Order: sequence, then C-alpha cells, then structure tokens
Amino acid sequence: MTPRGRRPGGADTRSVIVEAARVEFAAQGYDATSLRAVARRAEVDPALVHHYFGGKSALFTTVMDVPGSPLGLIGAVIEGPREQAGERLVHGLIGSWDTADGQQRFQALLRAAVTHDDAKRMLGDFLTREVFVKLVAAFAPPNCQRTDCELRASLAAAQVVGIALMRYIIEVPVMVEARQEDLARLVGPSIQRYLVD
Amino acid sequence: MTPRGRRPGGADTRSVIVEAARVEFAAQGYDATSLRAVARRAEVDPALVHHYFGGKSALFTTVMDVPGSPLGLIGAVIEGPREQAGERLVHGLIGSWDTADGQQRFQALLRAAVTHDDAKRMLGDFLTREVFVKLVAAFAPPNCQRTDCELRASLAAAQVVGIALMRYIIEVPVMVEARQEDLARLVGPSIQRYLVD
Repeated sequence: MTPRGRRPGGADTRSVIVEAARVEFAAQGYDATSLRAVARRAEVDPALVHHYFGGKSALFTTVMDVPGSPLGLIGAVIEGPREQAGERLVHGLIGSWDTADGQQRFQALLRAAVTHDDAKRMLGDFLTREVFVKLVAAFAPPNCQRTDCELRASLAAAQVVGIALMRYIIEVPVMVEARQEDLARLVGPSIQRYLVD
Repeated sequence: MTPRGRRPGGADTRSVIVEAARVEFAAQGYDATSLRAVARRAEVDPALVHHYFGGKSALFTTVMDVPGSPLGLIGAVIEGPREQAGERLVHGLIGSWDTADGQQRFQALLRAAVTHDDAKRMLGDFLTREVFVKLVAAFAPPNCQRTDCELRASLAAAQVVGIALMRYIIEVPVMVEARQEDLARLVGPSIQRYLVD
C-alpha cells in the first residue's frame, strides 16, 4: 500500500495549495487574499506557493480556471506592433476560447460569476487589478487620467466578453458562425480606439 | 362573492395569454411559435392576442420581461439624426437599465439565458430576428451583404450587453461608477462604426 498524504513538492502539494487558495479567495475576495494566508491554510512554506504559481494573479487564474489565460495573451499583445494591438487581442482571445476546452471553461466561469456573489466579486477585482491595469500601463497615453483610462480598458473587455457571451453561451447564430478573422477585422479597430488612440 | 375566472377583455385574459405564450415560446422556441398557437392554448380568439400585444415580438418582450424594451428604443434611435445614432443607442439602453427596476430585469434575463437552454434559445432567436434585422434595415448601406450586416449589428449588441454584464452583474467598480454621458461618449463611436459607417 502506498501511503497517502501530501508529499513536499509533489502533485498533491500543488492541489492542496489550489484548494486553500479557492477557500481564501472566496472568503476574502481577490484584493484581501495574501499568498502568505494561502500558504498558512495549505500548511506549506510560502516559498512553495511562489515556486508553483509565481504570484497571486497566476494562482487566481488557476483557481478560477480563467479561460485563455488573459494575462499571458496581454503580454503577447503588448510586445507586437502597436498599430494592430486591438486586432491581435481579439484574435488571441477568441482563438483561445474557440477550442472545445476554452469554450467550456468560459461557460463555467461566466455561470459562476452570474450566479455566485463570491465568484463575481473575485472576477471583478481580478479584471480591475490585473487585466485593466496592465492594459492601461501598456497602451494608455501618458496624459490619460487614471479613471478614464481604466474605463477605456474595461470597455474593451466588455466588447470581447459580450462577443464571447453571444458566441459561447447565448449562441446567437450569426455570432457562432462568424469567422475569427472577420471578428478580428471588425472588432479590432474598436479595441484599438479604446486602448491606444 | 365575485365569480372568479376569465372575463373576455379583462386583466385576466391578458395574463392568461402571457402565460400561454410563456409555455409556447419555451416549448417551440421563438421562431416556431405562432400567435395562433398561443391563442389556441389560451382559449381566446387570435384577434384578442393582436389586440393586447400587436405582434409576436411585443408578446415575447412581455414574456421575457426584456429590459429597456429594445424595440421601442431602436425606433427612437432610428428617427433621430443619423450621425449620433450610436451615442443615442448607448445612452437610451444604459439609461433604461440604470433604474433599479431595469437593473433587476436585466439580471433576471441574463441569469435565465445563462442557466436555461430554453431562455437562451429564445433570446438568441429574438435578437436575430427582431433586433438585428431592424438595426440592419435602418442603418446598413444598401450594398452591405446580409451576413456581414447582421454580424455588425450583433457586434454592436455584444458591446452594449458586455457593458451591462460588467455594470449590473459582475459589478466591476470602474464600470459601475461610470457616468451615462461618459459611456455614451466613449462607446457611441464604436456602435456608429458597426451600424452606420
């Protein structure tokens, strides 16, 4: 018989951390959750949490199973040519959600956010603190007022999330049938205008 | 004692029709539901259904409690100057949802669409057959291919629905705090570009 229980550094430790994080995020919300508190609950050294997840947003992405790992995508979008940033963002997000797996995860995430206050609050905090801030830092003109810039980033997110809602959840035929290229071509300029121009 | 039961033309008849329509729409979907079938189920003359509701989309709007009665708004938007159509649409929709009542109805509608296949299918059909078609007929240039035009209308809808999702359901702070005027000013041009330009 193999002994059960956590092994330091094993697959079990990782899932214990994820479970502890799920409880902490739900109880405290995204902002008030610390990696230290997650480590305490998981009964592991905080360094292990860092080792596995790097930081709070990556841990949250794992817990929420956030589809398309938007932070990774944003990194890729920021690095390419500025003139096509909007088109690249739309193409990247829709592309990552268009897989069977991505579609399922988007549905689960949105269902949770629409029906559970905890999930809703965490997702809202996460978008504000991680996604919008990164978009603003990368693209906003230097004279852009913080509130206005954040609002612009959130409008870009609203456009993409609205498309995903109609494509993967409400399944409006014209949106389901649209090709990724057409979506990127038509929507890219809107995103570009919100974020960059 | 007042006798109970339906009175022809009374408040009771109206609610019997609404209830019959709810059952028919759920069973048949939006497209396949006929006013005749609703009348038959309600055991009233089809003319009474027309008398109370005018047509299928108005009956559906009542059944689904569709917030902001988008069809009425679209009428108002179509009538004003073409150059500010996008801004007017955003202002009108957000304005109608920003009331406590409108907010609650939007939440109920979206929860239903996200969690029930029936509601989802009906809403999708309704948007496609009534809302998009009207927007396309009003604004699309004559040389616009049908699929492309419908997709543009649905992208405009996705932008506004995405904002409502973040403002009333996920409650992302920057979106909750945004003023109607700022939303109309920032989002109007995107809607304008999808629908008119």
